[in-house]
Amino acid sequence: MSYVNPLRAAAAAGQPIRGAWLASPSAVAAEAVASAGYDYVSVDMQHGTADLSDAVAMFTAIGGQGTVPMARVPSNDAAVIGRILDIGALGIVVPLVETAEEAAAAVAATLYPPHGVRSFGPVRASTTIGSRDTPDLEQIFVAVMVETPRGLDNVDAIAATPGLDAVYVGPADLALGLGLPPAYERTEPEHVEAIERIRLACERHGIVAGVHCAGGAMAARRLAQGFGLTTIMNDLAVLKAGAEHELRLACGTAD
Amino acid sequence: MSYVNPLRAAAAAGQPIRGAWLASPSAVAAEAVASAGYDYVSVDMQHGTADLSDAVAMFTAIGGQGTVPMARVPSNDAAVIGRILDIGALGIVVPLVETAEEAAAAVAATLYPPHGVRSFGPVRASTTIGSRDTPDLEQIFVAVMVETPRGLDNVDAIAATPGLDAVYVGPADLALGLGLPPAYERTEPEHVEAIERIRLACERHGIVAGVHCAGGAMAARRLAQGFGLTTIMNDLAVLKAGAEHELRLACGTAD
Amino acid sequence: MSYVNPLRAAAAAGQPIRGAWLASPSAVAAEAVASAGYDYVSVDMQHGTADLSDAVAMFTAIGGQGTVPMARVPSNDAAVIGRILDIGALGIVVPLVETAEEAAAAVAATLYPPHGVRSFGPVRASTTIGSRDTPDLEQIFVAVMVETPRGLDNVDAIAATPGLDAVYVGPADLALGLGLPPAYERTEPEHVEAIERIRLACERHGIVAGVHCAGGAMAARRLAQGFGLTTIMNDLAVLKAGAEHELRLACGTAD
Amino acid sequence: MSYVNPLRAAAAAGQPIRGAWLASPSAVAAEAVASAGYDYVSVDMQHGTADLSDAVAMFTAIGGQGTVPMARVPSNDAAVIGRILDIGALGIVVPLVETAEEAAAAVAATLYPPHGVRSFGPVRASTTIGSRDTPDLEQIFVAVMVETPRGLDNVDAIAATPGLDAVYVGPADLALGLGLPPAYERTEPEHVEAIERIRLACERHGIVAGVHCAGGAMAARRLAQGFGLTTIMNDLAVLKAGAEHELRLACGTAD
Amino acid sequence: MSYVNPLRAAAAAGQPIRGAWLASPSAVAAEAVASAGYDYVSVDMQHGTADLSDAVAMFTAIGGQGTVPMARVPSNDAAVIGRILDIGALGIVVPLVETAEEAAAAVAATLYPPHGVRSFGPVRASTTIGSRDTPDLEQIFVAVMVETPRGLDNVDAIAATPGLDAVYVGPADLALGLGLPPAYERTEPEHVEAIERIRLACERHGIVAGVHCAGGAMAARRLAQGFGLTTIMNDLAVLKAGAEHELRLACGTAD
Amino acid sequence: MSYVNPLRAAAAAGQPIRGAWLASPSAVAAEAVASAGYDYVSVDMQHGTADLSDAVAMFTAIGGQGTVPMARVPSNDAAVIGRILDIGALGIVVPLVETAEEAAAAVAATLYPPHGVRSFGPVRASTTIGSRDTPDLEQIFVAVMVETPRGLDNVDAIAATPGLDAVYVGPADLALGLGLPPAYERTEPEHVEAIERIRLACERHGIVAGVHCAGGAMAARRLAQGFGLTTIMNDLAVLKAGAEHELRLACGTAD
Repeated sequence: MSYVNPLRAAAAAGQPIRGAWLASPSAVAAEAVASAGYDYVSVDMQHGTADLSDAVAMFTAIGGQGTVPMARVPSNDAAVIGRILDIGALGIVVPLVETAEEAAAAVAATLYPPHGVRSFGPVRASTTIGSRDTPDLEQIFVAVMVETPRGLDNVDAIAATPGLDAVYVGPADLALGLGLPPAYERTEPEHVEAIERIRLACERHGIVAGVHCAGGAMAARRLAQGFGLTTIMNDLAVLKAGAEHELRLACGTAD
Repeated sequence: MSYVNPLRAAAAAGQPIRGAWLASPSAVAAEAVASAGYDYVSVDMQHGTADLSDAVAMFTAIGGQGTVPMARVPSNDAAVIGRILDIGALGIVVPLVETAEEAAAAVAATLYPPHGVRSFGPVRASTTIGSRDTPDLEQIFVAVMVETPRGLDNVDAIAATPGLDAVYVGPADLALGLGLPPAYERTEPEHVEAIERIRLACERHGIVAGVHCAGGAMAARRLAQGFGLTTIMNDLAVLKAGAEHELRLACGTAD
Repeated sequence: MSYVNPLRAAAAAGQPIRGAWLASPSAVAAEAVASAGYDYVSVDMQHGTADLSDAVAMFTAIGGQGTVPMARVPSNDAAVIGRILDIGALGIVVPLVETAEEAAAAVAATLYPPHGVRSFGPVRASTTIGSRDTPDLEQIFVAVMVETPRGLDNVDAIAATPGLDAVYVGPADLALGLGLPPAYERTEPEHVEAIERIRLACERHGIVAGVHCAGGAMAARRLAQGFGLTTIMNDLAVLKAGAEHELRLACGTAD
Repeated sequence: MSYVNPLRAAAAAGQPIRGAWLASPSAVAAEAVASAGYDYVSVDMQHGTADLSDAVAMFTAIGGQGTVPMARVPSNDAAVIGRILDIGALGIVVPLVETAEEAAAAVAATLYPPHGVRSFGPVRASTTIGSRDTPDLEQIFVAVMVETPRGLDNVDAIAATPGLDAVYVGPADLALGLGLPPAYERTEPEHVEAIERIRLACERHGIVAGVHCAGGAMAARRLAQGFGLTTIMNDLAVLKAGAEHELRLACGTAD
Repeated sequence: MSYVNPLRAAAAAGQPIRGAWLASPSAVAAEAVASAGYDYVSVDMQHGTADLSDAVAMFTAIGGQGTVPMARVPSNDAAVIGRILDIGALGIVVPLVETAEEAAAAVAATLYPPHGVRSFGPVRASTTIGSRDTPDLEQIFVAVMVETPRGLDNVDAIAATPGLDAVYVGPADLALGLGLPPAYERTEPEHVEAIERIRLACERHGIVAGVHCAGGAMAARRLAQGFGLTTIMNDLAVLKAGAEHELRLACGTAD
Repeated sequence: MSYVNPLRAAAAAGQPIRGAWLASPSAVAAEAVASAGYDYVSVDMQHGTADLSDAVAMFTAIGGQGTVPMARVPSNDAAVIGRILDIGALGIVVPLVETAEEAAAAVAATLYPPHGVRSFGPVRASTTIGSRDTPDLEQIFVAVMVETPRGLDNVDAIAATPGLDAVYVGPADLALGLGLPPAYERTEPEHVEAIERIRLACERHGIVAGVHCAGGAMAARRLAQGFGLTTIMNDLAVLKAGAEHELRLACGTAD
């Protein structure tokens, strides 16, 4: 085995992992974001506008900046996950995982038999990784999202899944599941505690606790709280906020 | 004639015109920027990454937000300008104009015979404008860039061009022409004076003085200086700066 | 709640709803069709050629004409439906629904917890709708297709599904299920009665009865029959028929 | 020389040539139109929305139906024409030709030295034509548009250009040049006579007289008038008219 | 029934069927490969980079060369298979089939009721095939892949599936399932025997035995072994190998 | 000045420069070719199928492999060249240069005032190069093609152009200009001598002599002849030849 996934190396070294998210389908935007120095940049294929062919171009642009290309996959479907890996994602975030079985299925989707169920055909991945050996191709950083009450109930078992690298908190969906309006950070105790509970489960099982944030200041707070991985920004949100902010400055109406 | 170009209406009413620039080829980004409330959003086809087919999607997205779609055209070429209008730009910014003849050619590229040289074929424009009548289709906001020493020498004659709506300052190229490093705002007197000279020529001839800016604060200064139209931001620059800023915040290294 | 879905408003007012269908993946075609004045234009993602990224551009073009962008989704899959809503569809048509449970699942895919199962991430929808509030984002017009014998058997229960806006007849598949050649309108009594049975179920439960048509004349007949929503045309079919018709005219071989 | 351009064969045999025009950038639409049985289908790269990469896909779709792929090129530029031929157009329509020299330049752009100025690199054309021999690759149907007063003055010399296959009338631009509103068919004597004058020049010099039409009925009139080649329809115009017509039928407001 | 699938005709005539595979998303590459004279060219939608919209362009390019367009579909999902057929594939290869029930489901996905479950909407297929009659549209060459131990156990029942045209060996996945490194041809007896076992099952049930190969020499061996259908090459693999080989030649380091 | 163009460094060190050419518009193919280890990979924008937006993706893929992205530009047009540099080409090959003035214009198109005429707007180049300083952005490898009799007559003056890095032989066009069939290598003395004459002019003026080849074996001969830079292969040609070769092997008809 010659390839080492940089995110796994960082996690093993206890280094904080800072990433960004792409909601727009643009490889030019992907490259601009990656060039800022993020550890990973993830294409959002659950909610975002990027198709598979967009993702190929985006992974290429991200990797070209020395950044790890990831994807939030649309769902926990082994065929879809396998293909996203074949076209070059080196990490995945799987949404809406609720049980240890589902977490194990996510891991299995990244591994070849006998360890998993992935079909062989590393079309772009073999170029990206520089190897067609299965142990190299299996070096995928796997994160599952816990973001529902049921997932929360099972978080300890989920975090114990062999081969899992991280549990990633989806705070907005988690809020909805708790009967709260969706937001990435809330002050209600049940939201605060739910997130801390996920973090502690990860700590207990020696895996990375990850969390989605709405900006660098929030991310700094999460890292200080003990999270090991955090998504700091979303390209479309930053662009929209920036466009509004600059216009207010030009109008003299900014705070 | 039933169609009125909103930029011409704003200019006639003496209202300041605030716009944005698109360097990336993404219609999703175009829409996000336009939704912030700019008067125009311009696709940069001189330096940007958008092709003609990208531009169609971007103009569509911009117009869908009630914003005027513009283009900085690649060069002062009547065939290229005509096509960009046919696919839906309602305003153009023509780079590197140096003489009154060139300014007149830019205007002529937007008008049909007998007033100009445009060929008839308003493929998308007729849908956008809601008319196939030539007086309606000719309601194009025309700005020419003065950004070279030769253009500066001829700025008075340029500003006097019949049918011209605006002279638009390209401060970075202007700086290079003056032997200075490229920047949108500089303190050297020759740069300051050159820009003011262009503004005054516009004032004298009753047309709009426009200028390219690097952010809302600079744009506010230019509007205060007497400019009537200003490009406030560039999508890729805002995204890159935002990505860097949020990462610094997350790292605790922001100022 | 501030956003009102125009199709729901029309349905509530008892106004007939007239739409079009897009089989080609072109946003330029989408805009041309929408500009004709349809109430909705739907991207056919079950049989058509448009990918997710095409759909983003097409929804943008449709919305830009003041028309409601819809999608016939590929299947009754909550992850896929959620994403199509996130990128901007304001209505969905779900094919091959056969039971009340399936109809309820289609509705749930459009609602956030606690009413449904949609994950939060309104990437484009928040711009389109102008809100990130979940009650606004949930204003989705939901139609399910009844087009199989099993669906027909359960049509009454389907039409009773809370939150469902319409049952939409797929007459061609319905014909196949009855052992007849596929067509949008047939004279065999079993086909005629099946369609009327669906319409009456909708009437009984106070929801909209919709039906797919092959042209405006057929649509007029369906509206007269009591249908409240009808798809009148398909871009590719109109283009192909038009191309053939004009060629016959030019050859002097038209009827 | 083994390849024979079907349009040249038809012209030599005195058969009428009937074609269509594409304003939208869709290969799916291109294929649908070509499948109706046109002799040629032309991508409008002067006014249309198709970029070079769209054109590759469209030429592929057109050729796949056994139809000759053509392009209206953006302008009489040898570099641009050469590239459009290299990517697969087998015929060109060159707009706004005003002199015999310009017509000769259009022809030269399609021929290799010593007969012309085309650079060698038949990237797709060699696959399309099935040959890399220059005499085969040079089998391009060349039409120049006469559509201005100056072109009209020089039409006899233009029609006499060696290697030219057709003069193609642009009736809308011609109308504008005569001080009339743009339309493909007008009753004013000066418009009628100008078009007939072009046709007669072609007849005199033994080349094809072509003309742009707005529908099959008009095309039938032009063929009866003695034109040998006619563009019958435009995909976007047919789609828009069809969408409007079907909606009127559905509303009961059609004539 | 008027349409005859060329692959079925070849199989009926006992002719060997030779195909190619496309891993890149390029229609230009698809056309270049098809022009070499393959019987089919298949878009790999399980591991490859082509999206649905890419596939439309690729099927168009393949069909335009008189070659049968196929697809390896992402998974055995009737909705996905139906859509791939609607956009123009005339044959499918379904991965990871393990039981006769799954094979029957693959066949059913290509047939309309009452024989199958396909929904009617042959958007491009009706143009490709030249018919909207269901017996014509159902002329799809159906191959299922046996490439797992479980599939191997059930290969006889799978090969007996009514309506199935071929079983297609995935030798790389098969190797992984046997605990061997992935390769298209191996010398270990268990791999050799597994492949021969599949071939014999096909022979017994009178259907085509197909197999994936890494080059023409290997394909020749497989045809000699008794396989009736073989995929000879993959565009990306040939390109990569060719690029490396030519560079070594230029460096004087080739063997 | 911090950025050093690797091709200039190689040229200064007297190292042979080996490159590849892309005729297809695919970034996936671009990456596969670049990964083979070429010094540069050039997008052919004179004869190839790649548009500007394709080129952005291709330059990204090439650069991501540590290879220098180049472009053969469509023509010697400063506006077009400037834009291709702004979107990320780090070297250009300008076709059909015939005089020293034209060569000087090609160089000037890559330099900012006061040394050249390039307009400032390094949209992607500033990310690629990691600098917005004009001396860095001006580090472009500039090659002009001599491929016509007139260019040949002026080759000595062309090779003397300040700032020019290379003269690049276009052997096929050169053959046509000499009245010979187009080929990259010919045995006729006039062709042999013309190419050697260009090489010697480069040697005399201390710049790189480059030449287009049809494969590694030919390239090795050219390097042995004294050329310093050679394009070894073209993606589409290698793919087509490979597809044909493998099929012949499978049919048992290969030599």
